[in-house]
Amino acid sequence: MKHHEELLIKSVLDSWFNHISRIDNLLDTLTDEELHMEVAPGRNRGTYLIGHLTAVHDRMLPLLGFEDHHHPHLDEIFITSADKEKDMPPAAELRKYWKDVNDTLANHFKSQQPEEWLQRHTAVSEEDFAKEPHRNKMNVLVSRTTHLAYHFGQLIFLDHKRHD
Amino acid sequence: MKHHEELLIKSVLDSWFNHISRIDNLLDTLTDEELHMEVAPGRNRGTYLIGHLTAVHDRMLPLLGFEDHHHPHLDEIFITSADKEKDMPPAAELRKYWKDVNDTLANHFKSQQPEEWLQRHTAVSEEDFAKEPHRNKMNVLVSRTTHLAYHFGQLIFLDHKRHD
Repeated sequence: MKHHEELLIKSVLDSWFNHISRIDNLLDTLTDEELHMEVAPGRNRGTYLIGHLTAVHDRMLPLLGFEDHHHPHLDEIFITSADKEKDMPPAAELRKYWKDVNDTLANHFKSQQPEEWLQRHTAVSEEDFAKEPHRNKMNVLVSRTTHLAYHFGQLIFLDHKRHD
Repeated sequence: MKHHEELLIKSVLDSWFNHISRIDNLLDTLTDEELHMEVAPGRNRGTYLIGHLTAVHDRMLPLLGFEDHHHPHLDEIFITSADKEKDMPPAAELRKYWKDVNDTLANHFKSQQPEEWLQRHTAVSEEDFAKEPHRNKMNVLVSRTTHLAYHFGQLIFLDHKRHD
């Protein structure tokens, strides 16, 4: 039933938006200097994790067939390189990219029809998709939502008032 | 289409099992002593996080209408109390609980029909569920999968050979 599909899709979308909003709230409580600290000794800095999430989310734009990505220069800094290997844009700039990319995705998500979420993403060929129909857009969203939660679990260590 | 529902459910189940398996692999690389360390200075110990995840997963057994939970004594130690507030079972014991609970859930998950995932979970009344049909079992699974990913992002800091 289409109703059932919509309910299943809603659970994942709600979870995505919930995590974006939790990170937005965390970013609001942190100064640029605090965000630029390592989340734990010797680990990634908050700015790197925000840049990494932004770059990964930006790549979702073409991957889901929405539009070209907005900030391709972030890939080399935040996906193919580890933290401290490359110079990165200032925290204030990263905050803008983060918001731009997630707002753009949100607009596309809101206009997707349930059946569109079941279509193939652009990294799988039509031939492979015929054999592996689970390689659809919703599968990308599930995977990126857990990726977001994974790094949120690390970013939260920058909030020294919280302990979980 | 039922086929579509199955594909959507598969994406979430795959993600659940993938994260369980990543934590299993991490546990295999850690000694009990290593697992009993704080994941970052002043933060939860690995044993606490495994106990916490185990207790939360154990509560999914009644929440999803499968069966009574197996280890209710874990709730007070790992859900209602923070780390270091209560004595906890030894790491070797926690590893057994972790496996027992996740294996039990896996067996139930594998026998669920797509339409069963759309049924209400036991924490919502029939009246409320009629108005809020997204409060279904799949919604619980999505939420617990991101919860698992969140804490996995923290547990991975115990693996000092990895940096992500």
